[in-house]
Amino acid sequence: MLFFVRMDVEIPRDLDPGVRADLVAREKRYCRELQKSGEWAHIWRCAGQYANVSVFDVADNEALHRILWNLPLFPYLTIDITPLAEHSPDLAAATESAA
Amino acid sequence: MLFFVRMDVEIPRDLDPGVRADLVAREKRYCRELQKSGEWAHIWRCAGQYANVSVFDVADNEALHRILWNLPLFPYLTIDITPLAEHSPDLAAATESAA
Amino acid sequence: MLFFVRMDVEIPRDLDPGVRADLVAREKRYCRELQKSGEWAHIWRCAGQYANVSVFDVADNEALHRILWNLPLFPYLTIDITPLAEHSPDLAAATESAA
Amino acid sequence: MLFFVRMDVEIPRDLDPGVRADLVAREKRYCRELQKSGEWAHIWRCAGQYANVSVFDVADNEALHRILWNLPLFPYLTIDITPLAEHSPDLAAATESAA
Amino acid sequence: MLFFVRMDVEIPRDLDPGVRADLVAREKRYCRELQKSGEWAHIWRCAGQYANVSVFDVADNEALHRILWNLPLFPYLTIDITPLAEHSPDLAAATESAA
Amino acid sequence: MLFFVRMDVEIPRDLDPGVRADLVAREKRYCRELQKSGEWAHIWRCAGQYANVSVFDVADNEALHRILWNLPLFPYLTIDITPLAEHSPDLAAATESAA
Amino acid sequence: MLFFVRMDVEIPRDLDPGVRADLVAREKRYCRELQKSGEWAHIWRCAGQYANVSVFDVADNEALHRILWNLPLFPYLTIDITPLAEHSPDLAAATESAA
Amino acid sequence: MLFFVRMDVEIPRDLDPGVRADLVAREKRYCRELQKSGEWAHIWRCAGQYANVSVFDVADNEALHRILWNLPLFPYLTIDITPLAEHSPDLAAATESAA
Amino acid sequence: MLFFVRMDVEIPRDLDPGVRADLVAREKRYCRELQKSGEWAHIWRCAGQYANVSVFDVADNEALHRILWNLPLFPYLTIDITPLAEHSPDLAAATESAA
Amino acid sequence: MLFFVRMDVEIPRDLDPGVRADLVAREKRYCRELQKSGEWAHIWRCAGQYANVSVFDVADNEALHRILWNLPLFPYLTIDITPLAEHSPDLAAATESAA
Repeated sequence: MLFFVRMDVEIPRDLDPGVRADLVAREKRYCRELQKSGEWAHIWRCAGQYANVSVFDVADNEALHRILWNLPLFPYLTIDITPLAEHSPDLAAATESAA
Repeated sequence: MLFFVRMDVEIPRDLDPGVRADLVAREKRYCRELQKSGEWAHIWRCAGQYANVSVFDVADNEALHRILWNLPLFPYLTIDITPLAEHSPDLAAATESAA
Repeated sequence: MLFFVRMDVEIPRDLDPGVRADLVAREKRYCRELQKSGEWAHIWRCAGQYANVSVFDVADNEALHRILWNLPLFPYLTIDITPLAEHSPDLAAATESAA
Repeated sequence: MLFFVRMDVEIPRDLDPGVRADLVAREKRYCRELQKSGEWAHIWRCAGQYANVSVFDVADNEALHRILWNLPLFPYLTIDITPLAEHSPDLAAATESAA
Repeated sequence: MLFFVRMDVEIPRDLDPGVRADLVAREKRYCRELQKSGEWAHIWRCAGQYANVSVFDVADNEALHRILWNLPLFPYLTIDITPLAEHSPDLAAATESAA
Repeated sequence: MLFFVRMDVEIPRDLDPGVRADLVAREKRYCRELQKSGEWAHIWRCAGQYANVSVFDVADNEALHRILWNLPLFPYLTIDITPLAEHSPDLAAATESAA
Repeated sequence: MLFFVRMDVEIPRDLDPGVRADLVAREKRYCRELQKSGEWAHIWRCAGQYANVSVFDVADNEALHRILWNLPLFPYLTIDITPLAEHSPDLAAATESAA
Repeated sequence: MLFFVRMDVEIPRDLDPGVRADLVAREKRYCRELQKSGEWAHIWRCAGQYANVSVFDVADNEALHRILWNLPLFPYLTIDITPLAEHSPDLAAATESAA
Repeated sequence: MLFFVRMDVEIPRDLDPGVRADLVAREKRYCRELQKSGEWAHIWRCAGQYANVSVFDVADNEALHRILWNLPLFPYLTIDITPLAEHSPDLAAATESAA
Repeated sequence: MLFFVRMDVEIPRDLDPGVRADLVAREKRYCRELQKSGEWAHIWRCAGQYANVSVFDVADNEALHRILWNLPLFPYLTIDITPLAEHSPDLAAATESAA
């Protein structure tokens, strides 16, 4: 089941550099694991922004919540979620009803 | 070069049914061709909305403009565009700077 | 899987009365069937508004999309969707992390 | 009498950990008591958000105010309230006028 | 139980003058009756706007919904509702906690 | 001359408790005096919010400004003002043009 | 007593040309009379917009309402009102507290 | 050349009282000088707000920028600018096209 | 004197094709003349939008108003204006104070 | 490939003066280099604002991201990006389809 997710990041300027470095390192590992498992299906940087857009492929809402809630940077993220309906094997048909 | 695009559709209720059917059929063919050429890289329906989110992979801004401007349903779309920066081969590194 | 959904209704003033009556009757039957199947888990009217808030209990995003897309009044609805994470058997624990 | 309530939580990063732990423990007990009394009729977490949506079943506006005002986390909540009109015994009829 | 209500009016320019006159006359009678019953406790015009602000004193949300839903001008109103908590006999105390 | 005023309160968490207690006590006295003089005609708490709605009955804009500017909590208030036109002796007539 | 007022104009495209010409002529006379009486103290066009900003000098809210309500173009205006406090004879003092 | 300018003031609570007093005194002198030169043509306080609305009469955009940029309180102001077109000698004509 | 201007275009679907063609042809000539005179200094299309962004170089606000007001498509445009301060001969210095 | 970019600057009041001076000096050099390379094609100050609008001429989205991300003031900027489609040699034709 797919979700489109946009994350805008705002790390407080006064966060301890050591804490920050640790957070970023943990975020990196966390993301890599979810990419390997296939749940973090896509991630792109938004050009010129401290933000990214992603597509998650998860079992259900519970799984999505657990993944996002446990992001090391979660307290510093503004998250916007759009549930997606997967395109059918016949892409064009999906397009017809979608657009 | 990648762009994230959300399209919200609002076809006027009083549009002639024949015109509407023709528009939708043309939109279908148009989308299918761009999927084959690889320029319309992803398309998903937004669940419960008359809307879709897409990722386009095009040569430049001009190409993006030409594709969107020529959508048969263009006059009935509200379009929101986010330029994306592709993730590098080392995905985790991209994530680190992105998130 | 649960979704919170708010629907604001705006039926055009010039809709043919017969068409309108038919739409409302079909909406009524459609809602009743989904209530029986358990997918339309809750529905309340918003006081003083032409709007309602609902909770849907569905298999996945696809099911949610199919249900909302097929609402007889769909073309006249503004729909806002919030994916929910079910509270665990221990409600208080859910509350702790939620609030 | 029913009210739909959404609460978005933002606990300051620099809140003393002891104070925070105490607040959360008190919030937990407070919520459990109101669930037992039936006034906090429903609570769900918003997936991927530090937020929840609830339905309260209270005697009147005064009771709603007293309950929300006394939430241990109240100073850190953004609260949005929608008064609801209960569905009648004939659910389908309620739906007809609601949707 | 008190509710603050703002109503912004937008009557379509092409509404039949006879229909409009009838609506306004019915609205007038409807308002007068609710003023006599005490349920429409206050009404003021917003200066320079086609809008009014009111305070309703009703039994519950159901009563508020029934009153607003049956306003002859209801289809042409944008309605915003704020549930109020009555000030206690000791007004100053109410102010202290309110402001 | 009447004004509708909504005040949303946000007292900084780190305000000295003594200063805060003094402010609230002064606000209480200030409000009580204006209620006695008749200038603070109505005040209600917004249920579940740290906010109130009021109606002021003052000589002119200058008087309104002086009253609000001198509120002990003024630096912590977001204030929204709507000038009102008093209902005429014939309430129903006022309603007709207002709604 | 002074009020700052912004008016954005949107005359429907399908308004009968004769009706439109009559409205504009009446608006012209109406404005000129209020300028002579001193109540319409200032009027400026917003560059590149179908809009103007004005300052009205009137007896009270009632007078402001009557003037705006009777604008021949009233049904086609979006009106935004800001009550002003006149600067005192010592302008600089007014500035000090204002800015 | 005229510009309408609204300034909303938000001086940080923790600004040193001496610095604040100095800023306000300098703002006062600065405003008085620009009033004498005729460039700060009008200033009014917004009733009940920490804000003012002004009309500036300057040579060009550069002059407007220089004046606003050098306001002693500039770092604490939110500034909104509307370029104005002066009314012609025939005020009514200006009104006709403006409103 | 420079102004940044964004124009969003929305031509009504039911505009007579002949009228539309005439408008577009006149807009074309109008733009070309202003480009020759140097007043319409820059124009770019917004990719994927029915909109453009421009920079105008005009004598004053009056000139800007006259140019925009006389755009053949003016009734169908939403126009947003930002007065600009020209960069000084020493570009880097301008950047320092600008950014 | 062109992008329109608006940058609003908000440097924290408590930033160390030495750090601030260094940032501004580095921003100045950075901008000057990109102007020489032709990538920072235009920059104007927004009159009366701590903001600027620019046009960038870059190879692709990646280049735009790299330039903006490395702005010395990046952490203190709110950045808004609009991809532009260059006007063709026949400017008037571009205008026709753009406006």
